[in-house]
Amino acid sequence: MAAKRPTIYDVAKAADVSKSLVSLVLQDSPKVGEESRRAVRAAIAELGYRPSRAAANLAAGRTRSVGVLIDDYTNLWFVDMVRGLHATLGRGGYRLSVVDVATDDQAEDPVESFLAMRVDGMVVGMDPPHALAGDGLPPIVVVGTRDLPEAPVPAFDSVANDDAEGGRLVARHLVGLGHRRLGHLSVGSGAARVRRSAFEAEATALGAHVHSTGWDGAASDEAGYEGAKRLLADHREITGLFAANDVLAVGALAAARDLGLVVPGDLSVVGYDDTSLAAARLVSLTTVDDLSFEVGERAGALLLDRMRGSATEPSSVVLPPALTVRGTTAPPR
Amino acid sequence: MAAKRPTIYDVAKAADVSKSLVSLVLQDSPKVGEESRRAVRAAIAELGYRPSRAAANLAAGRTRSVGVLIDDYTNLWFVDMVRGLHATLGRGGYRLSVVDVATDDQAEDPVESFLAMRVDGMVVGMDPPHALAGDGLPPIVVVGTRDLPEAPVPAFDSVANDDAEGGRLVARHLVGLGHRRLGHLSVGSGAARVRRSAFEAEATALGAHVHSTGWDGAASDEAGYEGAKRLLADHREITGLFAANDVLAVGALAAARDLGLVVPGDLSVVGYDDTSLAAARLVSLTTVDDLSFEVGERAGALLLDRMRGSATEPSSVVLPPALTVRGTTAPPR
Repeated sequence: MAAKRPTIYDVAKAADVSKSLVSLVLQDSPKVGEESRRAVRAAIAELGYRPSRAAANLAAGRTRSVGVLIDDYTNLWFVDMVRGLHATLGRGGYRLSVVDVATDDQAEDPVESFLAMRVDGMVVGMDPPHALAGDGLPPIVVVGTRDLPEAPVPAFDSVANDDAEGGRLVARHLVGLGHRRLGHLSVGSGAARVRRSAFEAEATALGAHVHSTGWDGAASDEAGYEGAKRLLADHREITGLFAANDVLAVGALAAARDLGLVVPGDLSVVGYDDTSLAAARLVSLTTVDDLSFEVGERAGALLLDRMRGSATEPSSVVLPPALTVRGTTAPPR
Repeated sequence: MAAKRPTIYDVAKAADVSKSLVSLVLQDSPKVGEESRRAVRAAIAELGYRPSRAAANLAAGRTRSVGVLIDDYTNLWFVDMVRGLHATLGRGGYRLSVVDVATDDQAEDPVESFLAMRVDGMVVGMDPPHALAGDGLPPIVVVGTRDLPEAPVPAFDSVANDDAEGGRLVARHLVGLGHRRLGHLSVGSGAARVRRSAFEAEATALGAHVHSTGWDGAASDEAGYEGAKRLLADHREITGLFAANDVLAVGALAAARDLGLVVPGDLSVVGYDDTSLAAARLVSLTTVDDLSFEVGERAGALLLDRMRGSATEPSSVVLPPALTVRGTTAPPR
């Protein structure tokens, strides 16, 4: 090991007091007498001791960490949300730890794991694999539209974009461009279901026809590719396609190419989430910006309130999404 | 809250013993007498108490968690590595917690944060932002080729693919296809530097000319796009382009398209990492498979040994990478 940094033990020894007393001084405890306080502070200055937050937090029985639960690192929707969480929780002195249950061995309830790590709070960014209930849970905020268990489990604080409004925005965009024969690719998440039914209802109300297809699994490049290939082969009249998220939409773009369809000339394609994948210049996907950063910021603020004990009733925040028009949508030719 | 699960306190009460004694029984401690043990076990059975691993681990002074440090969630190279870590550490009863310093507020040394979370071990998947030195660090394994501080800090266990061999594989592939005028896009990481110098040396030895360009920042779609656009405009003779990773390569594909170059007819492009981005059907990028899953598996095994105290000298594992040929490379026309 390199030259050692002075530790709390060195300070205790130099001040001729116990380690616990040094801890109390570091926490500004009123229990410490003036003489001991002065001796400890002199030792800290003399040794150049830098109290680690780790030690201070352990002494105070906190870890100052927040666990974030997601279900797929390769679906990049969560990246801006985590940045938003940092914007508020980081300022509040908390650090985030992200666990992806999809890469996991599933041997243990991830909630139990966070408890083992002694997180002070949790952010749930997926349909929870188990009921979020039981003793000793820290404060929890749910981000995104999620399939949550019904009562008698408690309501949680939640922050999401308005997925129904997002679905309607896509319907209005495609129909507004002149598309009347629409396709939709869905998957088995709570958010996808909301996007689908709002898209179908709005498109139908605007005089368009929608053929939807979906499966119960997770979104993947392959699911988007295979789903779009089937849908476009069965319904060659489709000129506008809405996929429940960007990952599916990029799979659909490859299906269109392999079917000889030019995007957007022959087929317009829209995703959801406005991830870095959609923004990549090679992809340049029209998509719905679900305000992931703002969702994270608001979720972080709610969680801070709750961890400080100042929040009361669970609150549900819903933010209005916006359409990001890029290169994959145009009027039908 | 929902119907409460029985807790360790309920068990203690039913067995008329202390909570600490229940803990000792759960840990199979030899300190507990037969009578107390039987009373506790009867209470556990009667109440249907399920000891949480959290409680057991806390009692044993462990968190059974491993911290993983990366520097960019949007560069998907780490996903398979984390899966590999899970394959060994998950079996060993450990859970992973991934922290991305790029989304972070940088207010605190991430190593300190992991200490605050009381991780039992750490995996470092980036050029470390600070010297990995100091008191009380848990066992650490470095994954990937990293810029590590020189002595006197200690050597760490490390697992990486052979980035020099990967660079040579790309040179042989492009020159073997008939390309003699090559370009290279680099960035400011330890791994990128090794890939670059091996690629340049091998291509030159094989009779090709290489124009390299790079910048000191992180890999991004924009860096790949702008770098490739400049390089290909300045050197219109280039027919084969190697980018230091898949993210840069996808940016380069967009630059080629915007310059009117057909891939692979006019320009062959190769990435590095074999991420899900490279495998997406729309991208179908030729790249180097750096065995991220196996790197994670081996790193997890080394860390397990070290956390169990059975490892001795630091060891360096280097795995041979392989070329994954997809749709972005072909002979020059």
